[in-house]
Amino acid sequence: MQATGDRLGTVGFARLRSLVEESLLGFLSPDVCPIPSLLREAMEYALTSGGKRIRPVILLSSGAAVGGKEEDLLPFACAVEYVHTYSLIHDDLPAMDDDDFRRGRPTCHKAFGEAAAILAGDALLTEAFRVMGESPLADKDPAKAIRASALLARAAGASGMAGGQMMDLRPATGETGSATGETVASAIEEIDLKKTAALLSASAAMGGILGGGTGEQVERLSRFGRVLGLLFQITDDILDETGSFEEMGKAVAKDRERGKLTYPAALGMASAAARAESLRRESLQALSPFGREGETLRDIVRMVAARRS
Amino acid sequence: MQATGDRLGTVGFARLRSLVEESLLGFLSPDVCPIPSLLREAMEYALTSGGKRIRPVILLSSGAAVGGKEEDLLPFACAVEYVHTYSLIHDDLPAMDDDDFRRGRPTCHKAFGEAAAILAGDALLTEAFRVMGESPLADKDPAKAIRASALLARAAGASGMAGGQMMDLRPATGETGSATGETVASAIEEIDLKKTAALLSASAAMGGILGGGTGEQVERLSRFGRVLGLLFQITDDILDETGSFEEMGKAVAKDRERGKLTYPAALGMASAAARAESLRRESLQALSPFGREGETLRDIVRMVAARRS
Repeated sequence: MQATGDRLGTVGFARLRSLVEESLLGFLSPDVCPIPSLLREAMEYALTSGGKRIRPVILLSSGAAVGGKEEDLLPFACAVEYVHTYSLIHDDLPAMDDDDFRRGRPTCHKAFGEAAAILAGDALLTEAFRVMGESPLADKDPAKAIRASALLARAAGASGMAGGQMMDLRPATGETGSATGETVASAIEEIDLKKTAALLSASAAMGGILGGGTGEQVERLSRFGRVLGLLFQITDDILDETGSFEEMGKAVAKDRERGKLTYPAALGMASAAARAESLRRESLQALSPFGREGETLRDIVRMVAARRS
Repeated sequence: MQATGDRLGTVGFARLRSLVEESLLGFLSPDVCPIPSLLREAMEYALTSGGKRIRPVILLSSGAAVGGKEEDLLPFACAVEYVHTYSLIHDDLPAMDDDDFRRGRPTCHKAFGEAAAILAGDALLTEAFRVMGESPLADKDPAKAIRASALLARAAGASGMAGGQMMDLRPATGETGSATGETVASAIEEIDLKKTAALLSASAAMGGILGGGTGEQVERLSRFGRVLGLLFQITDDILDETGSFEEMGKAVAKDRERGKLTYPAALGMASAAARAESLRRESLQALSPFGREGETLRDIVRMVAARRS
């Protein structure tokens, strides 16, 4: 039976996602990391939320696309998911987005209290760097491991994700009458690049580095992830706009209340859809030199783009 | 003029502390790390608090004791101080120790708001790993850099400092009548080991690793830091006990209110003083193979032990 490229990619995604699911808690098992029970419960609760695991799957697929070995990549893939999970826990806190529910369950601070939630986020972020630093690849090829670790830190830190969250909470540009469409679009894109695209781009580039890709390959993967991140954010915003008021989450309602900038709200739906289409093409174009090995990555583009409908 | 060992050590401490002070902000300068302004202000405010910089000085002195070069060690020393600073910001939050002042100034969340304080802590923790991963030593000797990075992550994470903070907030052992002195002492020591000693021990061991020390030297430095951490905590607790009610900080009053365990409170002042003296000797003993090069480290023991009086 001949699998089509599309189906190959889909099968690839599901398999890699299962692999991540099975491995996420193992790097925190009591024999390698004895954690006080309340803290462990809060960390594991947040980690087992049924997310799509898109970042670790991108890391694994990117590594595979350049010939990397899954067992070398897996600790880094889980590290990226720890960082993503920490960011969700802290973003949900009362002082931040103040969300009570995430994916249908109480948020971490609702379930375990604010102190445990803050510490669970802190601990997941920190353990990400421990898992990378104690990985088999850190022994075999420390240059790759430290480079990937630095890349993740830069993407998640003050000039990346944490900075983006700060800008998102306190937008520098208000909705002033004098702001042109282009100014607004570039302000939105700056936040999206930091808040969402940095971590997706780092995931892809880390896979490329750890898998032994060339400089050119790593650069393409990094670009792929960055553009995919922008696509991810714009499809999110389009979904929020088209959703009925009943379907709108508390977070979205709050975003509107405080005049948070989004692409469709600022530039209209037609413009947002055209931008999404252009980003979809650009992300696939970045993958063009990768043959069948890039099929899972292409499938991720399709999944993200399809969220519009 | 012949400097005594003691004075040599003191001079060493002051010089290294200045070196840290001068370097702390440089690794976050806008050309290497463009940070949104409110976030940068909150991070820099917390970093320039006039702390003793004991952890980075221990790292630098430990590295020097095994023949390491200062310029190789400095990024790692600053990283350790970032991690310490993040822990203070988050510990002070309303959901944690809820402190309004630290070293005579408003705490970070009092000065910049809770959201900025949470993000400033998150960002400092993350930037610590970026600074290590992008350091010149990470290029020259990646094996040492990734090992030091992993050590710091383990010390700060769920089985270390973050875990200790969780246990400190929610002590597992109440003051039950059946608990023996030894049980209580060991429960206290478990928290102190995680919350305070882990980071001091990692600082010393990181210096040993990065400076090119032997396994035996790294082990001795690690032990030195661990014992010094216990000494640090017990002298802190003795100071709190002997302080008059007026001098007692809000944090101490709150600790007592919630029945937080401390060595002098649980086992009496004489027992605590004897324990401190034994820890002082043990920390110096761990340093015995280091000659004049260990003098700054010995001086740190003296400084910490002298806090009792």
